[in-house]
Amino acid sequence: MPFEALFAPPALREAVSDEAWLRAMLEAERALAVAEARVGVIPQDAADAVEAACHGRFDATALAEEGRRVGNPVEPLVRALRGRAEHAHWGATSQDVLDTAAALVARDATGLIVEELDGLARACADLAERHRSTVMAARTLLQQAVPTTFGLKAASWLVGVVHARSRIAAARLPAQLGGAGGTLAAFGNRGLEVLRSYCEELELPEPVVPWHTRRLPLAELGAALAVAAGFVAKIGLDVALLAQTEVGEVREPPDGGSSTMPQKRNPVRSTLSRACAVRVSAAASVLLNTLPQEHERAAGGWQAEWDALSEALALTGGAASSMREALEGLEVDAERMRANIAGETLSEAQRFRIDAKQPQDYLGSSESFIERALQFYRA
Amino acid sequence: MPFEALFAPPALREAVSDEAWLRAMLEAERALAVAEARVGVIPQDAADAVEAACHGRFDATALAEEGRRVGNPVEPLVRALRGRAEHAHWGATSQDVLDTAAALVARDATGLIVEELDGLARACADLAERHRSTVMAARTLLQQAVPTTFGLKAASWLVGVVHARSRIAAARLPAQLGGAGGTLAAFGNRGLEVLRSYCEELELPEPVVPWHTRRLPLAELGAALAVAAGFVAKIGLDVALLAQTEVGEVREPPDGGSSTMPQKRNPVRSTLSRACAVRVSAAASVLLNTLPQEHERAAGGWQAEWDALSEALALTGGAASSMREALEGLEVDAERMRANIAGETLSEAQRFRIDAKQPQDYLGSSESFIERALQFYRA
Amino acid sequence: MPFEALFAPPALREAVSDEAWLRAMLEAERALAVAEARVGVIPQDAADAVEAACHGRFDATALAEEGRRVGNPVEPLVRALRGRAEHAHWGATSQDVLDTAAALVARDATGLIVEELDGLARACADLAERHRSTVMAARTLLQQAVPTTFGLKAASWLVGVVHARSRIAAARLPAQLGGAGGTLAAFGNRGLEVLRSYCEELELPEPVVPWHTRRLPLAELGAALAVAAGFVAKIGLDVALLAQTEVGEVREPPDGGSSTMPQKRNPVRSTLSRACAVRVSAAASVLLNTLPQEHERAAGGWQAEWDALSEALALTGGAASSMREALEGLEVDAERMRANIAGETLSEAQRFRIDAKQPQDYLGSSESFIERALQFYRA
Amino acid sequence: MPFEALFAPPALREAVSDEAWLRAMLEAERALAVAEARVGVIPQDAADAVEAACHGRFDATALAEEGRRVGNPVEPLVRALRGRAEHAHWGATSQDVLDTAAALVARDATGLIVEELDGLARACADLAERHRSTVMAARTLLQQAVPTTFGLKAASWLVGVVHARSRIAAARLPAQLGGAGGTLAAFGNRGLEVLRSYCEELELPEPVVPWHTRRLPLAELGAALAVAAGFVAKIGLDVALLAQTEVGEVREPPDGGSSTMPQKRNPVRSTLSRACAVRVSAAASVLLNTLPQEHERAAGGWQAEWDALSEALALTGGAASSMREALEGLEVDAERMRANIAGETLSEAQRFRIDAKQPQDYLGSSESFIERALQFYRA
Repeated sequence: MPFEALFAPPALREAVSDEAWLRAMLEAERALAVAEARVGVIPQDAADAVEAACHGRFDATALAEEGRRVGNPVEPLVRALRGRAEHAHWGATSQDVLDTAAALVARDATGLIVEELDGLARACADLAERHRSTVMAARTLLQQAVPTTFGLKAASWLVGVVHARSRIAAARLPAQLGGAGGTLAAFGNRGLEVLRSYCEELELPEPVVPWHTRRLPLAELGAALAVAAGFVAKIGLDVALLAQTEVGEVREPPDGGSSTMPQKRNPVRSTLSRACAVRVSAAASVLLNTLPQEHERAAGGWQAEWDALSEALALTGGAASSMREALEGLEVDAERMRANIAGETLSEAQRFRIDAKQPQDYLGSSESFIERALQFYRA
Repeated sequence: MPFEALFAPPALREAVSDEAWLRAMLEAERALAVAEARVGVIPQDAADAVEAACHGRFDATALAEEGRRVGNPVEPLVRALRGRAEHAHWGATSQDVLDTAAALVARDATGLIVEELDGLARACADLAERHRSTVMAARTLLQQAVPTTFGLKAASWLVGVVHARSRIAAARLPAQLGGAGGTLAAFGNRGLEVLRSYCEELELPEPVVPWHTRRLPLAELGAALAVAAGFVAKIGLDVALLAQTEVGEVREPPDGGSSTMPQKRNPVRSTLSRACAVRVSAAASVLLNTLPQEHERAAGGWQAEWDALSEALALTGGAASSMREALEGLEVDAERMRANIAGETLSEAQRFRIDAKQPQDYLGSSESFIERALQFYRA
Repeated sequence: MPFEALFAPPALREAVSDEAWLRAMLEAERALAVAEARVGVIPQDAADAVEAACHGRFDATALAEEGRRVGNPVEPLVRALRGRAEHAHWGATSQDVLDTAAALVARDATGLIVEELDGLARACADLAERHRSTVMAARTLLQQAVPTTFGLKAASWLVGVVHARSRIAAARLPAQLGGAGGTLAAFGNRGLEVLRSYCEELELPEPVVPWHTRRLPLAELGAALAVAAGFVAKIGLDVALLAQTEVGEVREPPDGGSSTMPQKRNPVRSTLSRACAVRVSAAASVLLNTLPQEHERAAGGWQAEWDALSEALALTGGAASSMREALEGLEVDAERMRANIAGETLSEAQRFRIDAKQPQDYLGSSESFIERALQFYRA
Repeated sequence: MPFEALFAPPALREAVSDEAWLRAMLEAERALAVAEARVGVIPQDAADAVEAACHGRFDATALAEEGRRVGNPVEPLVRALRGRAEHAHWGATSQDVLDTAAALVARDATGLIVEELDGLARACADLAERHRSTVMAARTLLQQAVPTTFGLKAASWLVGVVHARSRIAAARLPAQLGGAGGTLAAFGNRGLEVLRSYCEELELPEPVVPWHTRRLPLAELGAALAVAAGFVAKIGLDVALLAQTEVGEVREPPDGGSSTMPQKRNPVRSTLSRACAVRVSAAASVLLNTLPQEHERAAGGWQAEWDALSEALALTGGAASSMREALEGLEVDAERMRANIAGETLSEAQRFRIDAKQPQDYLGSSESFIERALQFYRA
């Protein structure tokens, strides 16, 4: 797909790459063998052989190409592993490995996203503190309404980012191990022991029962990402609107030059954040739309998830990263904010018989709200 | 919109109707006046007048028609109220009233949805218990894989329903009060007191700062509903597949007659659940797509929410209700389940050198998983 | 669903109402009997009895409620009709009647939409003509770029509206008649004759073969509506941006008052158009997502279409209607447009060594493009 | 993004790759210089220098990375080209080049998709002809209804594929050339000449006026792709259902082995087609949702299109390709089809007093419909 480097930072692109998925699949196979040996389902030396095989090199693209024949990339990998270690993939099914890989990929990528959101929250908090008293117009339906402060606007951004961050940090996909039909049949009556050991080895949550076609955690993760990206895009929209030539209240940091008009200071990072969010929402809709999966493995719904999850992760990170950069270097023109306030913007004050000669006389609870937002952030 | 009565039960249709929204808007106006009088922002008799006015009769459709002029149904209502009580809507803005109404409507409707999901969970638990030992084929990619039990299938449904129910029960929209620009300016330095009192009166959560364009709670509620409906549709899909003429392992309770072929026993409730879920997912996507809202009130994104929320609520309830009915009366043909198992379905057992002469000899952790699911449900 | 009257004009709400669907279902039953008698499949007096029964009164809501039992509203209607005329619905299935009703509802509603789009095109053309020479800033990424004219902006709107209108005018759903399995089996070897006569009686296109689960025409209609509504919302977005307090280049006609700030002139119609478009896109996605329908009738995908189609029709009409009103009364401030142009907006001219002292010296092909757009419209 | 090779054939992956987009961008720059020299806007030797520069080598990934700074990949490319030929990109803007590149990429990729759909249509036609008299059960709501033929089922697939193919073949994006603001200002009064010459050189349709923020053709292409993929997935769904162990009426050609159960013949290609379709629908929704683009260039909506278009193209081709393979090698078990028909499946015949002792006596217009479908295909 074209131009991914425009939208997602390198670490996130790497975290959802073919190679990262391959590494995660190998880690699942390795952990399975370790767990099985620990429980005594396979001999220790068999497990050692699997572990060694999992440290080998494989070609992710070739596996995907071969996988077209069977509909997933695990089967060719398993064949290759078994050529080196006969107990590889013992008692598991392709979906066990791919779902566990998804959990590992998601864990790593959400870690990176949370870092970006932390940075974004910090930038919001900084703006909220610095601009407690920076008066500007509140705008409803894109019309000036009453005075507010830029600090309060940033404080509301802050609350949303903290909220979104907490949801993503809490979203954890469990490991998957069910075997061909979700019964762990190949392990006889040792299935639950293997499952527990496998989850411990992977440091992933243990599911109550296999979740092969109970995809709620995945759909919820997708939704949490879309909520985060969508709110980040709200910040981007506000910045792009405030940066309009005719408004001129903020400017993104330099480097958004135009190829034909070097004088322009384009809101490039806000623009990229908004583009990311549109795509994350579509990716999340894939994860919602594929919830109804057939019986013990879906014929289509499951396979549609891999790219949707990867895209949702990479681009939520991309949105957060761009917006963090935009806010960290944001140039705020407090004078212009004050000057832009139209005459009638104080007319509401009169209606409520409040003696407000200047916009700053009609700010109500603006400062208190900023304080609450900062406390919420620090908590 | 046509045929809503087909999809959503009467109580849920009522809970999201024009009339329910109108009642909730009046409750918001009433609570505001009560809170303002309590704090001393308006006189007690002014509040009494507002409260009396809020008990009057209004025509929801007429308000919507008049509202077309200003883009929301609150403004005409406020004009009508002020004709009766001049302090009505004091210090508030249309969005305060409509967002608070949304919170009230959502609270009532999610209560009904949770009841339906409770009933559905009960039906799943019942099936899981009764069919612990009912052997059937696990199916992957719609092909028989290995033996499982119908109890385990129902146990996995159960875990998903309990999960979805807990998310919806936890999703609560806060009250909204910000005034024209989110600063509560009309209340001078008493804004936070009014806000607290208002939320108490409404028994709704208090937001950290006004959430006029920070729509995460709403988008999250939409996503939680779509996740629930999508998983309910997974149950519906399984039932419809098991009910196929050629499979015949379950039948929905009677009454799904065909107009032309009375012998048919159509999986009507599963069908309706699946139809509901498709629409809930689309409604949830509206709530995700409209997260980027402009400044202090959106010009389009906000107004798109009202129907999307209502539809997501009514149809998630509809999906749950239909599926509850389907499972409560589900006819399970255990003999057919056993008979359908194809010869090769035990071939995996041989590969793992397990001595399984009969499908029931190769069930692995099926029973343990059922037990875990029931414990999870009872917890 | 709440507040529909805010979004869609009365004629369109009526055109997709329960009652309109019921009327269309009765028209399908009537046309079927007429066609069957004409071909000789049923006696003429049997057809007369059906026709008389179809002129009777039925309760749309009651039919929907009864229909919940069987999953569609046709079966209860058929039972009622057969009580009065035993040959009612002869050889047909519920889906025949409902799909044909959808074709009739869509034909009527698209007629209304096309009228609204015609009015919108006229308003665009008028603005394009009147403002051929009204210089304003072209804006890219919300930054001023180079000069353009308001006429060219309106001309581009015009081309889009004409394009969208032509697509909707061309989108026609065929009639449906297939019987229980799509073979017209009940008519023996007279099936094709009945089909032709039925389509003629209804003045609807005849399908090559029944389209019960080949839903391309419906999905295409949905997409055409979403494209139209989405482009109308682009006009709404431009108007809302130009109407910003700080830009002030256009104002919607009066009546968008605020409940708290009467001085505000809100871009209400643009706002409503944008809200409609978001929802139409979601409705269209339902029609795209339900294309994969099972065998000869879908268990969920079909049933999800009815509301999605109705909503897409009503709200595309709503978007067009609101935007037509906005443009018909649009106040254009040509002086402000000229005055808003920033100094550097001519810097590109220097780079291309063009002697442009005033913005109007650097308009390139603006006027020629306007002329082309007007010719395209008139063609 | 992971595992693309599983879903899309190599030619289509290549056709939407970074490299293909880069080639198309260079072709746009080359054609622009050629056109400008032809019209006399730049000297011929300047155009020759640009043409030479466009034959140079560039690193697509590096351009994307550099492009992050400005929000698009064209600006770094233009800087590189200008280092070699100063008249490169004369009078154009980044969007001109990228939109024209999109038109070229789409033209090439839709060519490949049409080939796949042609192959799929041929396979459907072949099945329709061969199975005119292969009796099977028609199934509604996944229940057997009345007899039909496999030929008629394939004939309905055929009609849908031919329909979808014709829409994609007709969808052509125009070239784009507008300059910084859509006025072609840099060309003085020669703009339309340059535009015509540019379109001729590229063999792309000429737009009435620049379509920078009038994205209907792109949204329509996306919708046409989603309709095609969605219908292909309907075929996949039917095949997967018919291939169920308990139905066993068709089997995909060999090679869909399971890693754990080699006896399984999974409907792999149907599965992949269905997975592709879900994602194409989401990609199309991006193109519908981004129709409302700001003024003369969107800050987010435009940038979201590139991947959505690429994904829609690649995966529609992927769906068609997989399904073509599935049908070309489809094993049809006519005996099983006949044997599966349940006793009551003829009960409708009695109701219509038709003497049908065998399913083949109750096929109505099945054969005539097949003939009509084949004529429609051949036309």
